[in-house]
Amino acid sequence: MNLKIAVLGGDGIGPEVLAQSIKCLRAVEETFHHHFTFTEGDIGAVAMEKYGKPLPEATTALCRASDSILFGTIGTLKYDENPSAKVRPEQGLLQLRQELELFANIRPVKVFPTLVNKSPLKKHVIFGTDFIIYRELTGGIYFGEKKLSKDGTLASDLCEYSEKEISRIAHFAFKAAKNRRKKLTLVDKANVLETSRLWRKVVSKIGESYPEVQLEYLFVDNAAMQMMLHPNHFDVILTDNMFGDILSDQGSAICGTKGLLPSASIGNDHAMFEPFHGSYPQAEGKNIANPVASILSTAMMLSHFGLHEESRSVVTAVDKSMRKQIVTQDLNVSSKYGTNEVGDFIAANIIDSE
Amino acid sequence: MNLKIAVLGGDGIGPEVLAQSIKCLRAVEETFHHHFTFTEGDIGAVAMEKYGKPLPEATTALCRASDSILFGTIGTLKYDENPSAKVRPEQGLLQLRQELELFANIRPVKVFPTLVNKSPLKKHVIFGTDFIIYRELTGGIYFGEKKLSKDGTLASDLCEYSEKEISRIAHFAFKAAKNRRKKLTLVDKANVLETSRLWRKVVSKIGESYPEVQLEYLFVDNAAMQMMLHPNHFDVILTDNMFGDILSDQGSAICGTKGLLPSASIGNDHAMFEPFHGSYPQAEGKNIANPVASILSTAMMLSHFGLHEESRSVVTAVDKSMRKQIVTQDLNVSSKYGTNEVGDFIAANIIDSE
Ligand SMILES: [Mg+2]
Ligand SMILES: [Mg+2]
Repeated sequence: MNLKIAVLGGDGIGPEVLAQSIKCLRAVEETFHHHFTFTEGDIGAVAMEKYGKPLPEATTALCRASDSILFGTIGTLKYDENPSAKVRPEQGLLQLRQELELFANIRPVKVFPTLVNKSPLKKHVIFGTDFIIYRELTGGIYFGEKKLSKDGTLASDLCEYSEKEISRIAHFAFKAAKNRRKKLTLVDKANVLETSRLWRKVVSKIGESYPEVQLEYLFVDNAAMQMMLHPNHFDVILTDNMFGDILSDQGSAICGTKGLLPSASIGNDHAMFEPFHGSYPQAEGKNIANPVASILSTAMMLSHFGLHEESRSVVTAVDKSMRKQIVTQDLNVSSKYGTNEVGDFIAANIIDSE
Repeated sequence: MNLKIAVLGGDGIGPEVLAQSIKCLRAVEETFHHHFTFTEGDIGAVAMEKYGKPLPEATTALCRASDSILFGTIGTLKYDENPSAKVRPEQGLLQLRQELELFANIRPVKVFPTLVNKSPLKKHVIFGTDFIIYRELTGGIYFGEKKLSKDGTLASDLCEYSEKEISRIAHFAFKAAKNRRKKLTLVDKANVLETSRLWRKVVSKIGESYPEVQLEYLFVDNAAMQMMLHPNHFDVILTDNMFGDILSDQGSAICGTKGLLPSASIGNDHAMFEPFHGSYPQAEGKNIANPVASILSTAMMLSHFGLHEESRSVVTAVDKSMRKQIVTQDLNVSSKYGTNEVGDFIAANIIDSE
């Protein structure tokens, strides 16, 4: 397969973890005889310094012309310490998602057996936890009309959803469930919210086209409870923007470390893959950042393009790095391996097992 | 102190757990020389059967004329199995909260040392966890305008908050923090929501009148994560209706069992105390329901009226029942004690330790 890949390293540790992802994709390319081209683009604080804005047109154009986007991280200490700055690096990412209509945010949560000790949850509770959250990303209360009365004493936010917004991500989630353990949990608050009742109506209707997928409904408060008590209950979770924001962050805590979690933001025409963690500016250039989340996001990318065996080869190599303790210091304080060495090891262990 | 107490047992196990609470309050009355009067009222399915509605006027009148309300649980199998019934037992509770303006829902989360093994979280994670959630209960998106377009393809919910709604519960929360570890965490999503920005503005202003309380802000997604990673970080959490719904249910999961958690719903003129758990109709009349949540809700009531020593005597007696394993079978499958015996033991151990 030929793939044109846009590489947006961004700020902080973004470029250095992305460099490891590219090593791994080069190894996949060679092992499985594909052809990947990588083109770099600026985004975030680094773009603000060069062009005065966090998302230059050239970057948007590059992304539009690419098959896939690999994204690093965004944000620097300068802006973290000044939360009221009008133009902010993060806006580059939000704007890009909006422009490319990346309406589905996908967050897998899986506990590596060798890292059970990192989880805040007891071993028997997390045993077998392996779920994936489909969060609607461009609608709902975060994007609805906001009002503040003139005297500043009354504020409001409008949560709106249309059938179209719900159905396009629902199809993604059902397809994912079909390829997994065939269970979809719609999380909403349909006993109270009108938008939730629309989600339920649309999703249950779409469910009829996926008879092999078991569809269940869970109120969001109960879902937050179950994610703590029985995280292994879930397979695919489908939910709106705000509930998804809360639950995917709660879910990420299950692993006890953010350094391992990949994510994807997908639309009908474009797809972007990124580590879940932040830009960690304190670690920039020190060869200590954990590259695994970024590398696992390339596994998500490969699956997205139907390259399932290739994807598995990346995950297997990551697994091996954990078992052999070729990990960064966030996972093992006495480790002597850095970002580069972990990336090298994983790339070197990408093999065609067939 | 003289207290007129309305006793609304409701459905399922409500009346039998409340009976244990009354035993304990009788013991407090005698030990500390107070005078409590108890008057029963109907609410829920039992009221629907007698009067055709879940909240008869007589019950509302009784509550208005009382200093405090003890509430049991609501809901029966008949209604649980028919979620679309127009008139529902739960409406009795919602209506009562509305009529008495009980705008603050208070949920303490504390892990009993003897029950650490029940928690899904590891021992070192929950060590020292003891926080209390102040959830706004009568405003926000659950009560805002709901719309559905004629063709049924576009739905909306409006989230509204006024300065007044925020400030009245904020004062409650600051006062609570002042009497505890002096830390208040406002949970919101102020980087996105206008209502959250109003919460922040109002709460930070009120905070100036409570200089001894340390005020911090946390985004709700981060709060859900921290509640899993570092639940012992929190002292008092203040938040809106929906975020509070999610976080208080997540928080309750920390204990691993609902049988222990009390709650209160407070307004400026009235106060209601109830166990967090449901009506568990399968257990009704079997003398197996855990009365501890209901009994601990009386400890909340005593504190509410400034009877702190009396409140501590109840908590201490409950603690003792745990240490001596005088518990129901949900906490120890081989226990020979039932609802009544646990209630008797706790009541008998309420003593004036001064
Ligand atoms: Mg988030
Ligand atoms: Mg709830």
